[in-house]
Amino acid sequence: MKPRGQFITFEGTEGVGKSTQLGQAASLLRDLGVEVVVTREPGGTPMAEAIRDLLLAPRDEPVNDLTELLLMFAARAQHLHTRILPELEAGKWVLCDRFTDATFAYQGGGRGVPADAIATLETLVQGSVRPDHIVLLDAPVETGMARARHRGELDRFEQEAVAFFERIRRTYLDRAAAAPERYHIVNAARPLEQVSEDVSHLFKSFVLR
Amino acid sequence: MKPRGQFITFEGTEGVGKSTQLGQAASLLRDLGVEVVVTREPGGTPMAEAIRDLLLAPRDEPVNDLTELLLMFAARAQHLHTRILPELEAGKWVLCDRFTDATFAYQGGGRGVPADAIATLETLVQGSVRPDHIVLLDAPVETGMARARHRGELDRFEQEAVAFFERIRRTYLDRAAAAPERYHIVNAARPLEQVSEDVSHLFKSFVLR
Repeated sequence: MKPRGQFITFEGTEGVGKSTQLGQAASLLRDLGVEVVVTREPGGTPMAEAIRDLLLAPRDEPVNDLTELLLMFAARAQHLHTRILPELEAGKWVLCDRFTDATFAYQGGGRGVPADAIATLETLVQGSVRPDHIVLLDAPVETGMARARHRGELDRFEQEAVAFFERIRRTYLDRAAAAPERYHIVNAARPLEQVSEDVSHLFKSFVLR
Repeated sequence: MKPRGQFITFEGTEGVGKSTQLGQAASLLRDLGVEVVVTREPGGTPMAEAIRDLLLAPRDEPVNDLTELLLMFAARAQHLHTRILPELEAGKWVLCDRFTDATFAYQGGGRGVPADAIATLETLVQGSVRPDHIVLLDAPVETGMARARHRGELDRFEQEAVAFFERIRRTYLDRAAAAPERYHIVNAARPLEQVSEDVSHLFKSFVLR
């Protein structure tokens, strides 16, 4: 039987290049003979993607902070238990664009939902499951937002003010500082090739461990 | 300023006549000069109704029990904080077709989700808010199911087996037995006029208190 796969998440504020880096890391791993699943949160299964649509659609009705938090974890429960965990058990590596760190950063740091409420839901939904590695792509908020705006139409989160994203970035950095063995901070404000080179080194080290 | 309104929920398994009795109780209250809001769970706001649609739609993907539970409370957080509580504060009485007792009964008793997980979410979403009165329409499962089937197309819950609804009925009755001052059990297996008469007496007593 193959050993359990690695669960690696990509985190960061808008426009830091998560999707690009995740795609390149997946290619690298495949070249090294690793079976890889690429997925994202919220989403990753048809049901969880339907919850994602509910969450991201701009709407007239103000969305209660707890509603947003519970929808995030509803999508996560579905994704984790019906897809991520079975793939890891089958020996595949799972690369996920955002996971629970994003909830602590966006709903916690951004919206002000108390961290202990988030931690309660994390335990309820995940038990002791945590990512093996978290790749945090970090850049000043303005750098990322300029890139996100460039992509066109903004979703309900991207429409928030700069201060919202400053709090998110701060929460990510604080969480990384508290558990440096699992968090890998990559300076994403530099040219793409340099960021890609760092991420590539990182993933080679994950495989060689 | 008007005193805070009463929050009254209607509970029971499929086909016990909740909607009919709720509608008649609302008419009676209005005749007695009470301002009434009629609503339902999951649902009650556009966002919460969209979550309801996600929950009830039959789908190929098996829905994780925790996903279902978290979606129920996501809809509830939205409904309670953006609609029910403001209406109660404004002095209106809120009559709601199902509330958290249904979660204990369906997701707890029916699906087997541990009651303490449900209680954790209840506290997270509701704080200390509980219905002032719970009207439990009780009938043998077969009686109700025959009526529900008669209505046509069955949703994802109505498609479950009889044993599922037996566990739900049992959970409702146990909860009512544990807090008889708030639960009012009405025998819904009798002819409609007799059930209506009991519910009517009950609501007159709520107004006269």
